[in-house]
Amino acid sequence: MTQIRFALAQIDTCVGDLDANADKIMRYSHLAAQDHAQVVVFPEMTLTGYPIEDLALRRTFRQAAWDKASWLATELAADGLGDLYVAVGTVGTDHASDKPRNRMVVLHDGVVWAGYDKHFLPNYGVFDEFRIFTAGDRSVVLDVDGARIGVAICEDIWQDGGPVAELAKRDIDVLMTMNGSPYEEGKTHVRHELAVRRAAEVNAPVIYVNQVGGQDDLVFDGGSFVVDADGAMLLRSPMFMEHLSFFDLDTDAERQRPGEIVPDMDPDEEVYTACVLGLKDYMAKNRFRGVCLGLSGGIDSALVAAMAADAVGGENVQGISMPSMYSSDGSKDDAADLAANIGAKYDIQPIEPLFSAYQKQLGLDGVAAENLQARIRGVIVMAYSNSRGLLAVATGNKSELACGYSTIYGDAVGGYAPIKDLLKTRVWELSRWRNRAAAAGMGIGGLHVVGNEQGDPGKPLSGGVMIPVNSIEKAPSAELRPGQKDSDSLPEYELLDKVLAAYIEHAHGCADLLADGFDEKTVDTVMRLVDRAEWKRRQYPLGPKVTALAFGRDRRLPVTNAFRE
Amino acid sequence: MTQIRFALAQIDTCVGDLDANADKIMRYSHLAAQDHAQVVVFPEMTLTGYPIEDLALRRTFRQAAWDKASWLATELAADGLGDLYVAVGTVGTDHASDKPRNRMVVLHDGVVWAGYDKHFLPNYGVFDEFRIFTAGDRSVVLDVDGARIGVAICEDIWQDGGPVAELAKRDIDVLMTMNGSPYEEGKTHVRHELAVRRAAEVNAPVIYVNQVGGQDDLVFDGGSFVVDADGAMLLRSPMFMEHLSFFDLDTDAERQRPGEIVPDMDPDEEVYTACVLGLKDYMAKNRFRGVCLGLSGGIDSALVAAMAADAVGGENVQGISMPSMYSSDGSKDDAADLAANIGAKYDIQPIEPLFSAYQKQLGLDGVAAENLQARIRGVIVMAYSNSRGLLAVATGNKSELACGYSTIYGDAVGGYAPIKDLLKTRVWELSRWRNRAAAAGMGIGGLHVVGNEQGDPGKPLSGGVMIPVNSIEKAPSAELRPGQKDSDSLPEYELLDKVLAAYIEHAHGCADLLADGFDEKTVDTVMRLVDRAEWKRRQYPLGPKVTALAFGRDRRLPVTNAFRE
Repeated sequence: MTQIRFALAQIDTCVGDLDANADKIMRYSHLAAQDHAQVVVFPEMTLTGYPIEDLALRRTFRQAAWDKASWLATELAADGLGDLYVAVGTVGTDHASDKPRNRMVVLHDGVVWAGYDKHFLPNYGVFDEFRIFTAGDRSVVLDVDGARIGVAICEDIWQDGGPVAELAKRDIDVLMTMNGSPYEEGKTHVRHELAVRRAAEVNAPVIYVNQVGGQDDLVFDGGSFVVDADGAMLLRSPMFMEHLSFFDLDTDAERQRPGEIVPDMDPDEEVYTACVLGLKDYMAKNRFRGVCLGLSGGIDSALVAAMAADAVGGENVQGISMPSMYSSDGSKDDAADLAANIGAKYDIQPIEPLFSAYQKQLGLDGVAAENLQARIRGVIVMAYSNSRGLLAVATGNKSELACGYSTIYGDAVGGYAPIKDLLKTRVWELSRWRNRAAAAGMGIGGLHVVGNEQGDPGKPLSGGVMIPVNSIEKAPSAELRPGQKDSDSLPEYELLDKVLAAYIEHAHGCADLLADGFDEKTVDTVMRLVDRAEWKRRQYPLGPKVTALAFGRDRRLPVTNAFRE
Repeated sequence: MTQIRFALAQIDTCVGDLDANADKIMRYSHLAAQDHAQVVVFPEMTLTGYPIEDLALRRTFRQAAWDKASWLATELAADGLGDLYVAVGTVGTDHASDKPRNRMVVLHDGVVWAGYDKHFLPNYGVFDEFRIFTAGDRSVVLDVDGARIGVAICEDIWQDGGPVAELAKRDIDVLMTMNGSPYEEGKTHVRHELAVRRAAEVNAPVIYVNQVGGQDDLVFDGGSFVVDADGAMLLRSPMFMEHLSFFDLDTDAERQRPGEIVPDMDPDEEVYTACVLGLKDYMAKNRFRGVCLGLSGGIDSALVAAMAADAVGGENVQGISMPSMYSSDGSKDDAADLAANIGAKYDIQPIEPLFSAYQKQLGLDGVAAENLQARIRGVIVMAYSNSRGLLAVATGNKSELACGYSTIYGDAVGGYAPIKDLLKTRVWELSRWRNRAAAAGMGIGGLHVVGNEQGDPGKPLSGGVMIPVNSIEKAPSAELRPGQKDSDSLPEYELLDKVLAAYIEHAHGCADLLADGFDEKTVDTVMRLVDRAEWKRRQYPLGPKVTALAFGRDRRLPVTNAFRE
C-alpha cells in the first residue's frame, strides 16, 4: 500500500515578479512540509505569473525564470525540503525552435527536473497561447514512492485526445493538474463536470489546483478541488482566497477518503467578490494605495465606491462630487450619504465655472456640450489621480458602454473599470445584495478575498447600510441636460439587458433576435445603438499604442508585470 | 502551346463592407475581361476585407459573405463574364467544426467553385489567424484550358512545407498567390526573395497579388509582382495605389516575357506615403471628411498636419493653436506659417483662462499642472471633433511615446496617430524629404496613393515649402513650464533612438545593450524611462473595453467594419 499526501497550493502570483513569486512558493512549500505533504502542486505558470503574454518571447525573461527556478531548488534543499516534490509552473524554452513553452517543472533534491510541456494551447476568448508557446508533444508520469502521477496543464484537460488520452493507457494512480482558469459565472460547475469526465477516462482521482487573484483584466477564482475516479467530490477549496488543502491518496483503496468541501457561494456574492478581488489586486500589483472617482449620486458610482471600500478600505477612497447646473439636490445628497456610509474622503468640485470658461471660447451645444461636461469631470478626476497618486476608476456598466451612453475621455477615464462587465440590472442586484450583507453585519472589508482572509465581519458601516436606497430606486439619469432620463435614449433596462445578452454574448443576429421573441422595434433600436457605439468606439480606439516594429506591431505585454531586464 | 492571360487586381477593400467590395470586384473583373484576361486574381479575403478578426466568428457574417459570393458569380455570368475565372478571397465555414476558414473561391460560369483553404495561419506580430480560422489541409491545382495553376494564400508561402511543398510534386505551370501582407520598411525585398525561393521550389513562375490600402492600424502597400521560375522579375505593380497588371503565361516557354517593372521608391518617400495612405483610408473607411489637431509650432504636429493635407487636402485640416503662458512667440509663428503653407483652417484658442479656472479650484503643481495643460488642450480638440464631425489626430512620435513623454487624455487624445511608429529622428528625415519634394514641385495631394492615382503634381504650396524650417531646426520643447527642453528629460534623440530601436524592436536586454556599445548611464536612463512609461501606460490602459462574456472577453472586432447584421 502506498500513501501519498498532496498539498494543493492555491496562490496569487504577479506576472513578471519572479522574486515575490519564488518567495511565496518557498513559504507554501514550508507550510506543506510542516503538514507532512510529499508533493505540493502550484497553479499554472506559478513562478512567472499568468498570463504572461509576449513577455514569454523575451529571451532575457526566460533566462531569469530559469535562474530563479534553479535558485528555488537549491534553497528548498538547503532548508531541508529536498525530499519534497514541488510542482511549479514556469516558462521553458524549446531549444530546437528557441520558442517558449508553458512548462511544469518539479523541484526535488536540489535539482530542477525537466518537466512536462502543455500540449493544448488555447487561443480563443481571452487566451493567446498558441501565439506565444510551442506545444508539448509527450505525456509525463512521475513516480513518487511507487505511485504513478500523471500530469496535465489546464487546457490539456479541456480538449479530448492529447496527453490525457495517452495517460488513460498508462495506468496512473492520480491525475495532477495545474490551472490558470479565469472566473466566469457558472464556471465552477463546468470545471467539476469536466474533471469527473477525465477521472473516468484515466480511472483515477483528478487533482485540480487553480490560480487565485486578479491579474490585469482577468480574475482567477481559485476553488481548487479533487474528484475521485468515480466522480465523487473529495475536496474543495474556497474561492477568491489563497489556500492550502491536503489530499491523501491511497493507491490501493477502491475509494479515496473525502476531506473538507466548501459549499457554493450565493451567486450575487460570488460576482461581487470577483469584482472586488479584481480591483484589489489591480491596485496591489500596480502599487496603488487608493482610488479616486466621481460620485454622481447614481447607482453605478455608488456600487464602484462600495467595491473600492471593500477592497482597500473607505479611508483610501477619494470621492469627488462634481455637480453641474443640471444636478439635482437629491443626487448631491445621495453622493454625500454614500461617502459617509463607507467612510470615504469626499470633495465637492462644481463644474459650472469651468464649463462657463470653455463655453465663452467654444460656444458648444447639443451632444458636444454634454460631452464637454463629462470631459471637465475627467480632467478633475485625473488631477486628483496625478497629484495624489490615486488610481482613477471608471464607473461605466456594460449596458451603457455597449449602447455608447458614455463619453470617451470623460466618464470613461480611468485605469480600471470594476463593473464594465456587469449589465445594469446586475448592478442593481449586486447593490441590493451588498445592502443585505451590510444589514446582516458585514462591514467594510468583510469579504473573504486574497489578503483579507481573517474572516472578521469588517469595519462597521454607519447605520448598517452601504448604498443609499434612493440611488438604487430612482430612475437613472446622466444629468447632462435639464430633466434628462436614460429612458429617453435607451429601452428600459430590464428589456435592454436581455437583448444585449443575446446580441453581444450569444452573437444572435437580427433574425435570431426576432426568433428569440423580441419585438422588431426594440431589436432595431438596440442593434442600431450597439453598432453605432461600436463604430464610435472604433473611431476613437482610446489612444495610440506603442508598437515594437515599424508598422502596427504591439508589444502585447501584460499590464501588471514587475519584471525588469 | 497554352497561353493564359492573368490579371493581377491589386485593390483596396473595407472590412465588413460586402456590398462595396463586391462592386469593386465586379468593376475590376470587367476591366480584366476588356483586356482579354482569362484569369483575374484578387488579394486575400477580398470580399470580406482583411484582417476581419473575430467578425469571422459571427455565423451571420459568414452567411452574408456566402450569399454575396453567389450573387457575384450570378452577376458576372449575367454580364457576359461567365468564361472568366475570378479568384476571390472570402471567409468559408468548416462544416465539421462550424469554424471559419480563410478561403479562396473561384467564380466561373455563374457558380462559386469550392476553393482552397489557407493552411498556415499566422499568429504572431499583428496576426491572430490561428485564433480565428481552422487550417486547410490539402493543396489545390486549378485546370484552366489545360494550364495547371497551383494556388496559395499569403502565409502558405512564408512557411516551409505544407501546400507549396505538395505543389512542388504536382507539376504545376504557375503558382498563383493572394496576399494581405502589411507594410514594413524593407519588406518589399524580403517578399521578392521569398517568391524567388518558392518559384525554384515549384519550378514555375509565381504570381503575387497583394492588398493595398489602410485598414484599422495597418497599411498594405500593394507592390504586386511576378517572378519567373528562374527568379527573374517579370512584372512589378506600383506601391500604395490600386492597380491592374497583366501577365501572359506561356506554358511551353522556357522563360516568360517580362512586363512593366516599377522601380524602387525613395525610402523616405515610401514611409511618408505609407503614413498618408494609412490616415487617408482610416478617414474614408470611418467616414471622416476632415481632421482637427493641435498645432504647437513643433515638428511633430507640423509633419502630421502635412500628412493630413496630403491625404485629404489642406482645406479639410482644422489646425488649432492653443498657446499657454509658456508658449514662445516663435512657436506661435511657426504654427501659423505651417497652417498657411498647407492652406489649413486655423484657430487660436488660448488655454490660460481655462488653466486659471481649474487652478482656482485645484491648485496643482509639478507634473500634475503640466498634465492639466495638455488635458485642457485635449478637451478643446475633442470639442472641435464632436461639434464639426472631424477626426482628432494625435501627433505623438514613437520616441516620446516609448519614453512616456506624453499625457494620457491630453496630447494622446485622438482616433488615429499617424506618426506613432516613427522615431523622432525619422520625423525630421521625413519632414526634410517633404520639403525637398515641395521644392521640386510636389504640391498638396501630389502623392501616388489609393484614390489619388491621377499622378498630377497636386495643389501648389505657398512659397514652395511645406514645413517651416524653424520647426525642423529648433530644439524640441513641450513648453509646459518656462524654458523647458526635451533634452532636460531625455537623452539627445540621435542617441535615444538607437537605444530604443535595440531595446524595443530587437528586444535587447541590459547586457545586450552594453554589448551593443551603449554607455551604462544611457542604457540605465533609457531602460528606466521606457519601463516607467510602460508601467504608467499599463496603469491607465486607455479606458474600458466592452467585452462579450461575463469576465474579460473582448469582441476583438476590426476598427473599420461596415457590416450590419
